[in-house]
Amino acid sequence: MPMTRITLRQGYSDTRLGEISDILHQSLIDEFAVPEHDRFQIIETLPDAQRSFDRHYLSGTRSHDFMLFHVVAGKPRTSEQKQNFYRVLSERLHTLLAIDPDDVMVVIQFNSAQEWSFSRGEMYRPGG
Amino acid sequence: MPMTRITLRQGYSDTRLGEISDILHQSLIDEFAVPEHDRFQIIETLPDAQRSFDRHYLSGTRSHDFMLFHVVAGKPRTSEQKQNFYRVLSERLHTLLAIDPDDVMVVIQFNSAQEWSFSRGEMYRPGG
Amino acid sequence: MPMTRITLRQGYSDTRLGEISDILHQSLIDEFAVPEHDRFQIIETLPDAQRSFDRHYLSGTRSHDFMLFHVVAGKPRTSEQKQNFYRVLSERLHTLLAIDPDDVMVVIQFNSAQEWSFSRGEMYRPGG
Repeated sequence: MPMTRITLRQGYSDTRLGEISDILHQSLIDEFAVPEHDRFQIIETLPDAQRSFDRHYLSGTRSHDFMLFHVVAGKPRTSEQKQNFYRVLSERLHTLLAIDPDDVMVVIQFNSAQEWSFSRGEMYRPGG
Repeated sequence: MPMTRITLRQGYSDTRLGEISDILHQSLIDEFAVPEHDRFQIIETLPDAQRSFDRHYLSGTRSHDFMLFHVVAGKPRTSEQKQNFYRVLSERLHTLLAIDPDDVMVVIQFNSAQEWSFSRGEMYRPGG
Repeated sequence: MPMTRITLRQGYSDTRLGEISDILHQSLIDEFAVPEHDRFQIIETLPDAQRSFDRHYLSGTRSHDFMLFHVVAGKPRTSEQKQNFYRVLSERLHTLLAIDPDDVMVVIQFNSAQEWSFSRGEMYRPGG
C-alpha cells in the first residue's frame, strides 16, 4: 500500500531506473512490511533548473545526483521501521549503485487503508 | 477543495485527456460532495520505464493503460463516500471510455481547510 | 523541512523559474519558520491539456499563468502562520514578478519529523 514518487536528474538509462526502483521496492519489503507484489512507483526526471535543493542542509554535500523518494503509505509504521527503512535504502543504493548517501532524501506521508482503491472501484479492506 | 494528480501512460490525445478529466470531476461532484466549479487537476504522462507497477496486486491484470488518480482533499469524507467515489469513477471510465476497471487505482489524502489558499493570498474559510 | 512542488505552465525561462523559486523560499523563511538552508523544491511545467483548473472558483479570473504551490511540511504551523505565508507569497509574486494574485494557489500538507530523512539514511531528529 505504498506509492512512491522518485524525483531524479535527467540522463539515467532505463536499466539504471529499474535498478533504483528495485532497490527501493526491496527496501520497502524488508523494512517497511510491504507485501512483495505491492509495488507502485512513479519516476520523474527533471532538468537542473526544475530541481532546487540546498547542497548542504543536513547533508555533507549533495551533488547533481540528488534523489528524492516521496512515499505515501497506508498504515502506520514504528519509529524503528522508519529509521531502518531510511538506513537500508541508503546503504543499498550506495553499495549496489555507488550512489552517495549524501544524495538520498526520503519523505513519507501516511493515510489510511480506506483511502486506497487498487482496482475495480473497490475500497481496500485490510484482511479483506 | 480537492486537487488531483492523474498519472498516465504517454500517447493519449488531448481530447482523451479531457474526457478522463471530465469523468473524474463529475465523479467528485456526484460522490465526494465537491462543488461544481472546484476543479483542479494535474495530468502527467510518463514513459513506461518511469511507471513501475505490479500487474496483479489486488487487481485482475493491470495493462499498459494503468492509471493512478492521487487526490488531496480538504475535508473528511465518510467510508461510504469513498467507496461510492471509487466505484462510480471506475464504472464511468469503463462505460464511457472502455477503460478496464483493473487499470484504475485511486489514492486519497486529506488535509484541512486552513491548508488551502485558492487565490489572492487568502486562506480558505469554510462558509467564508 | 518543507518540500514544495510547483506546477506551472510551460515557457518560463530558467531565470524566471529561479525567481519564482527564490520568492517561495524567502516567504517560507520569513513566515513559516523554515531554516535558511532548508530548501527543497521540484518544479514541473506542463502543457495546457495537462492542467485542468476552473477559471473562477474562489478567484477573480485565473489565467494561463495559474500556478500551484504544493507544500509538504514536517511540523505544525498556526493558522496565523499559514495566513501570513499565503499573503506574503502572493504579494511578493505580484510585486516582484507581476504575477496576478488570482493565479496563485497553495495547498499544504503536514507530516511529522520522523517522516523525513535528509541524507545518509538518518531519520530527522528535532534538535538532534
